[in-house]
Amino acid sequence: MNEGDPNLHCPIPAVSPADVVELAVGEGAKASRLFLDKFIHNRFKNQTLQRRDDAAILEIDALQLAFTTDSFVVEPYFFPGGDIGKLAVCGTVNDLSMVNADPTCLSLSLILEEGFPLSDLSRILDSVEKWCQKANVEIVCGDTKVVPKGKVDGIFINTSGLGRRVKGVTSPNSVVKEHDVVLVSGPIGCHGMSVMAARNPGLVETEIESDCGLLLPLVQSLRNREVPVKAMRDATRGGVAAVLHEWARQFDVSISVDEESVPVRSDVRGLTELLGLDPLFVANEGTMVVVVDSTFAKAAVEAMRSVPIGVGATRIGNVHAGRRYPVTVVRGLGKEVPLLEPTGAMLPRIC
Amino acid sequence: MNEGDPNLHCPIPAVSPADVVELAVGEGAKASRLFLDKFIHNRFKNQTLQRRDDAAILEIDALQLAFTTDSFVVEPYFFPGGDIGKLAVCGTVNDLSMVNADPTCLSLSLILEEGFPLSDLSRILDSVEKWCQKANVEIVCGDTKVVPKGKVDGIFINTSGLGRRVKGVTSPNSVVKEHDVVLVSGPIGCHGMSVMAARNPGLVETEIESDCGLLLPLVQSLRNREVPVKAMRDATRGGVAAVLHEWARQFDVSISVDEESVPVRSDVRGLTELLGLDPLFVANEGTMVVVVDSTFAKAAVEAMRSVPIGVGATRIGNVHAGRRYPVTVVRGLGKEVPLLEPTGAMLPRIC
Repeated sequence: MNEGDPNLHCPIPAVSPADVVELAVGEGAKASRLFLDKFIHNRFKNQTLQRRDDAAILEIDALQLAFTTDSFVVEPYFFPGGDIGKLAVCGTVNDLSMVNADPTCLSLSLILEEGFPLSDLSRILDSVEKWCQKANVEIVCGDTKVVPKGKVDGIFINTSGLGRRVKGVTSPNSVVKEHDVVLVSGPIGCHGMSVMAARNPGLVETEIESDCGLLLPLVQSLRNREVPVKAMRDATRGGVAAVLHEWARQFDVSISVDEESVPVRSDVRGLTELLGLDPLFVANEGTMVVVVDSTFAKAAVEAMRSVPIGVGATRIGNVHAGRRYPVTVVRGLGKEVPLLEPTGAMLPRIC
Repeated sequence: MNEGDPNLHCPIPAVSPADVVELAVGEGAKASRLFLDKFIHNRFKNQTLQRRDDAAILEIDALQLAFTTDSFVVEPYFFPGGDIGKLAVCGTVNDLSMVNADPTCLSLSLILEEGFPLSDLSRILDSVEKWCQKANVEIVCGDTKVVPKGKVDGIFINTSGLGRRVKGVTSPNSVVKEHDVVLVSGPIGCHGMSVMAARNPGLVETEIESDCGLLLPLVQSLRNREVPVKAMRDATRGGVAAVLHEWARQFDVSISVDEESVPVRSDVRGLTELLGLDPLFVANEGTMVVVVDSTFAKAAVEAMRSVPIGVGATRIGNVHAGRRYPVTVVRGLGKEVPLLEPTGAMLPRIC
């Protein structure tokens, strides 16, 4: 293995020990993890929270429920392929899907800036409605706050979701281990680059469409074909790299990714190269990473490809017994280099 | 009845038909109601949401759950008697209490401004922890977003809550009708005037303490003594007046309040007079309004007075068959005048 200069592959500044909140803390990567360790998990100690799943898994009487929350602050709030409303519904429902829960209901809490155009609000709420219908979920409670002009940037949305756990795809006791394989459900980096391009209209010639969408059909397809999934996550903030680092830590394994097999759309590739970013670090909002035993790799890919959101599903990597670096990437010509854990602050307000 | 000039009693501007979001929309009063009718309830049509309870009531298998969400944007985020963290926990748990649900778990979603002092954040999270312990509820999931400096004012918190419904105090089919009586659990207007005074340090000589607190012991006390409550609400944004108007509309009755019997602390009274406000319109965060059959008035007051947060409980009004005005107030010397529905925008960012 070539250890090279790891910073070459991680264009993100290190976390500084400042006594104020830094942007990086909200980016879902290493800085977020350290912040959560110190400020949240050290303080709110309970088994449910400690699991750090995409959604909390609750058992009330015999009923298994999943509960999740997300606040959305994306800027701009309309972007090619989506908007803050679609993002909120899909993001929250996806968190439920990732713990084998089918959505039961959502809450919708709006924080609006005084003077926010009602026409934009209507368009956003229409989108919330449309994606709730697609996910077969209802908004059952809500809240609306308005703050004076300049005290919030346009619109922030919180959606919390409640889902009912179903016999799943993943067993709670699954262990990811040597010889397992890593799959991705489609081309990566679309959401992050879509938002980036929407913020900087002169940067690229054409719009880049976000992958923002529902992962539920993918999970249902894997479930229907009885593919035993060992782990699955939607690769949001921090991108695929953050998910792989999380698993490497959780299961005490190393994961290698074959760069040439990672699907990246050419428009996304172009912009990441322009900005000097690695698509593995860029946020997705409708793309999941999956681990299965190698004998199920083909069945899993076929299951995912059977639904529209998964047509680009493919195998991208392998799981190894713990090696020197938790995550590596095999670049062109077979050169294997460490892939650092993303530390954050690359693209603030991406979701 | 003296119809007088109703505007005398409602120092709040009328709703304007602008095509942008106005501050008043977030104030929990008439402007909020009209906004919600048009933008939310016309769009998201389901029985649960239409009930417009403080929390959504869900039935999953045989299990009755309550689900609620609130975003908190209070400014300043520390005020005498509380802070945004205490407010979030108590506010969300209170919404569950108001539909006879004991809290099961909460989510905690933070939106932080880049540069927010970590010491303030720690103090706020300590407060969240403390009030979760008092309410016997755990934070089971969360989210943290950080936005660049100037894009949000300090800290906003969303808490969503899940509770388990218990055989309650209120029957879902309770009908509020003629000869029922209206009670309040303690002195009103404390929260709104506390925040107002904290924003304007020169305005009053001493600090005004918010009533921010948990209503759960009050509900448990009423439950333990088997007082059949017909309706209960925490009188947050829009104050006691908004609650009374809601009930008058919901049950097609009129409600009269005896001004002299309404408990108002002298410091709160002083500031409301200085600002030309009616305490009935001012927000509370640990005060509930209750309707019982007149034969249970004494038992209800005694039950509430048996817990610390209810020592100031008292009877303040009566329910009548529908009269000309939905809500009236009997001022000094027996003069009865209409109490308009609050329209909003009196005190933005009160919670």
